[in-house]
Amino acid sequence: MSDQPTALNLPMVDPLPETTQKYFDICQDKLGMVPNVLKAHAFDIDKLNTFTALYNDLMLGKSALSKLEREMIAVVVSSINKCFYCLTAHGAAVRQLSGNPKLGEMLVMNWRVADVDARQRAMLLFAEKVTKESHTVEETDRQALRDVGFSDRDIWDIANVTAFFNMSNRVASATDMRPNDDYHAQFR
Amino acid sequence: MSDQPTALNLPMVDPLPETTQKYFDICQDKLGMVPNVLKAHAFDIDKLNTFTALYNDLMLGKSALSKLEREMIAVVVSSINKCFYCLTAHGAAVRQLSGNPKLGEMLVMNWRVADVDARQRAMLLFAEKVTKESHTVEETDRQALRDVGFSDRDIWDIANVTAFFNMSNRVASATDMRPNDDYHAQFR
Amino acid sequence: MSDQPTALNLPMVDPLPETTQKYFDICQDKLGMVPNVLKAHAFDIDKLNTFTALYNDLMLGKSALSKLEREMIAVVVSSINKCFYCLTAHGAAVRQLSGNPKLGEMLVMNWRVADVDARQRAMLLFAEKVTKESHTVEETDRQALRDVGFSDRDIWDIANVTAFFNMSNRVASATDMRPNDDYHAQFR
Amino acid sequence: MSDQPTALNLPMVDPLPETTQKYFDICQDKLGMVPNVLKAHAFDIDKLNTFTALYNDLMLGKSALSKLEREMIAVVVSSINKCFYCLTAHGAAVRQLSGNPKLGEMLVMNWRVADVDARQRAMLLFAEKVTKESHTVEETDRQALRDVGFSDRDIWDIANVTAFFNMSNRVASATDMRPNDDYHAQFR
Amino acid sequence: MSDQPTALNLPMVDPLPETTQKYFDICQDKLGMVPNVLKAHAFDIDKLNTFTALYNDLMLGKSALSKLEREMIAVVVSSINKCFYCLTAHGAAVRQLSGNPKLGEMLVMNWRVADVDARQRAMLLFAEKVTKESHTVEETDRQALRDVGFSDRDIWDIANVTAFFNMSNRVASATDMRPNDDYHAQFR
Amino acid sequence: MSDQPTALNLPMVDPLPETTQKYFDICQDKLGMVPNVLKAHAFDIDKLNTFTALYNDLMLGKSALSKLEREMIAVVVSSINKCFYCLTAHGAAVRQLSGNPKLGEMLVMNWRVADVDARQRAMLLFAEKVTKESHTVEETDRQALRDVGFSDRDIWDIANVTAFFNMSNRVASATDMRPNDDYHAQFR
Repeated sequence: MSDQPTALNLPMVDPLPETTQKYFDICQDKLGMVPNVLKAHAFDIDKLNTFTALYNDLMLGKSALSKLEREMIAVVVSSINKCFYCLTAHGAAVRQLSGNPKLGEMLVMNWRVADVDARQRAMLLFAEKVTKESHTVEETDRQALRDVGFSDRDIWDIANVTAFFNMSNRVASATDMRPNDDYHAQFR
Repeated sequence: MSDQPTALNLPMVDPLPETTQKYFDICQDKLGMVPNVLKAHAFDIDKLNTFTALYNDLMLGKSALSKLEREMIAVVVSSINKCFYCLTAHGAAVRQLSGNPKLGEMLVMNWRVADVDARQRAMLLFAEKVTKESHTVEETDRQALRDVGFSDRDIWDIANVTAFFNMSNRVASATDMRPNDDYHAQFR
Repeated sequence: MSDQPTALNLPMVDPLPETTQKYFDICQDKLGMVPNVLKAHAFDIDKLNTFTALYNDLMLGKSALSKLEREMIAVVVSSINKCFYCLTAHGAAVRQLSGNPKLGEMLVMNWRVADVDARQRAMLLFAEKVTKESHTVEETDRQALRDVGFSDRDIWDIANVTAFFNMSNRVASATDMRPNDDYHAQFR
Repeated sequence: MSDQPTALNLPMVDPLPETTQKYFDICQDKLGMVPNVLKAHAFDIDKLNTFTALYNDLMLGKSALSKLEREMIAVVVSSINKCFYCLTAHGAAVRQLSGNPKLGEMLVMNWRVADVDARQRAMLLFAEKVTKESHTVEETDRQALRDVGFSDRDIWDIANVTAFFNMSNRVASATDMRPNDDYHAQFR
Repeated sequence: MSDQPTALNLPMVDPLPETTQKYFDICQDKLGMVPNVLKAHAFDIDKLNTFTALYNDLMLGKSALSKLEREMIAVVVSSINKCFYCLTAHGAAVRQLSGNPKLGEMLVMNWRVADVDARQRAMLLFAEKVTKESHTVEETDRQALRDVGFSDRDIWDIANVTAFFNMSNRVASATDMRPNDDYHAQFR
Repeated sequence: MSDQPTALNLPMVDPLPETTQKYFDICQDKLGMVPNVLKAHAFDIDKLNTFTALYNDLMLGKSALSKLEREMIAVVVSSINKCFYCLTAHGAAVRQLSGNPKLGEMLVMNWRVADVDARQRAMLLFAEKVTKESHTVEETDRQALRDVGFSDRDIWDIANVTAFFNMSNRVASATDMRPNDDYHAQFR
């Protein structure tokens, strides 16, 4: 394994534009690392920027879904798709945000064993169905979410977080993107 | 079916910000319609903007893949996921860009019957594998793309267009997003 | 692609027997073409005759299922099996008989988005189950058809039309049978 | 279980037309029974006739495939589709025609364990692929048959016998058609 | 096919230890054969002993499941896994214990056609789910067994018999283990 | 969650027989816990003994497969079956025996990303095939193992370890068996 974050020979722009360098510096300060997914996109700053804008809006923006709930979806989707990068990075995020390392393990291994409430269970069932057989989703599936208290805006968010990881799982696996080693031991 | 572009009650911001309105006006002028996917996102202008930025970079930005080839991937992925919205919109795009209505039908129905060259066949095989079982992609799969002339940057683009439609197929199906009726008769 | 209707080198009997020639002439007059599936069988007139007898009985014979409903089943089954020939020919038939091009597209792409009534929905769900996992059909599945008004004779017809296209989809795909080009633009 | 050959209440025409009665009498004489599949169709003599014409052409007509080979395909297809009727009736036929009861059992249970020659193995692999994922059949699959000595006409026959049982398996399972009890003990 | 019970060259310990020889002699006396699964393990007497201890406890030991019911599970699991060895040996056991050859055939071919009572149906549905998608088993599945009268101890037994054949099916198929020919004609 | 190791109400024999108590004391001393799988079986000492005898022979007995390799198979099989108990317990074992926490994570998440040698890769491919579609294993699959240096005895061991976890994954999931919490933080 080389230093490259993926199996593709796509070196980062060098030097990075000032704004990008600053963003990476902030990552280094706050997370102790620059996540490899950012380095992987940094061969083309426009691609990096569109990716981070979408990611930040979905995962960090305003939503009635808590950040932990969005990370739970991320891990459940990534478990179905068996994405090493995303399971590693977002498994760590679940451990961090929940303070419950076992929850992270459960979502990685088999989310059905996790002790989640009825609302979260409905959310994860929907995420699973959208991931595995999206063409069969019908109004009854959306209504099941409304029945446990989700608004139409929340359904949009669940659908989009689910869909986003169906995208990034595939980019990561198709390019053999590798997570930073630091994630593995975090928040155990 | 109401006027809503999806099954979710998420009305567009009203009035639209000036930039957005201008963008929609351009769509109306150039395409004869505002695609429903844009209206669907327009309940939140940040979400609309991050979506269109990513879409435009991938599908209209600089790439060694022709626009037609990117649309071919879009249709093949959407056929696997049985996404009515994307098959309708991007099937029309294939018909338009290729000037070959039958090619559009073939990609919608069963891409293997399409008379594509060895390079495009390798591209579509990769897109199919990434869509159906991304966790099994290995170096031999990337090498198969290099062997027919794709660069590592091209592989990035194939992976990302493939992944993008795995995202948007799922958003469309999860929200019951409906394509503009105009697409059906276009470029037949 | 040669003039052959399939990838197999099986030329039509030449000259055709008088009755066959007459039948083909009628097709040409009424449909504007001789469907390639007929030409494909015409290397052996007995095979042609047994095929057309079965087809005509099922699709054109007396039944409480309308001709459109039988064509709807044809397209839904062919969509599951991704049969280019049958989707093309019977997609056109749905467009023609319904006067609703969008309905044809929906059934080709993802029948669940089509706005069908409860009776037709039950019929298509049964056709889907018989196509995908026939060994799990049980009395409750037949009862679900009776509950929306189908008689036992109607159930026979639904089962047999479904089964017929599971046969002809496979013949078409196994031999690379190609539909007449005329279908693509019809009834759009 | 009533006397009906299926779960549908579709009694035979009574009395049967003379030709049909004669055909059933011949069955009784030669086979010791009237196969239930014939009784099941006999509520409508046209349907019975089109079915038997197709069946007899495919399974008993002239072909470079031996009758045993056609029955082998019948059993392998029916095993994939888990069709009780066809496995019972055609399993008995394999035992009879081969004089090898174990061969019948192997084809019912897992055809890969059967000690067939390279030609028959290619034939059964093709039948399996056409049954399970017909849309992926390509020229290389047909060529593999030619490579072990099959002509294009033989490929037509393999495809059509395979496809026929994909039809009749589904009719049998969808209607809960039951085989005559006599088959079970035959040719053991 | 050589005399070896599997495709692996692992000859039996020679001579067999006295206890083992005695056990094999009893098999020969009572069953008319030494089952090949025992010969296959006899290259290592410890392996033979741990296997037979587990088998005998599960299939012959004390349980509220009748021996026939345990054999029914064995055949249903083996049918899903298409294991020639286990279908042959345990299909014969079902015929013997039930005195109903047709029941054995039904369980081999498609257990859903078998005329079992509600209790046995629940048991076989559970066995099927545990075999095909064990990670989705939830408390409702166990409760469905309790609802038809099974105790928690019975559920343990159903789960373990099901699991055992998921093990031995795989050993048999992975090593090409062949059943004794005598089974085929037994209890027809 | 109660103190019970599974969802079944099957309390341990109380008091435990002396030998069993001694065995559990040794576990407590050497592992710092009595694994819940042992407690789960301890409602019936015969079942406990047959299970541990088989387990110990396969996983701790003499074999040309290292203990780490056997644990690698355990984790790969358990990942396919999504068994929370076995992934937790045997993931910890891989971390311990390899001294490589990342290897344990990789095998849990997607074994194909793990940097294993050609011999181990062949072993894991075989384990995957035996787990997912054992009925398709053929001589070429066994030969592929011989080609990288495995003996027939080694193939027996690979097949049996693979098969064993296909059994115990199903018992664990069917009974909702929960791993001891201590595993999660071990050897990180």
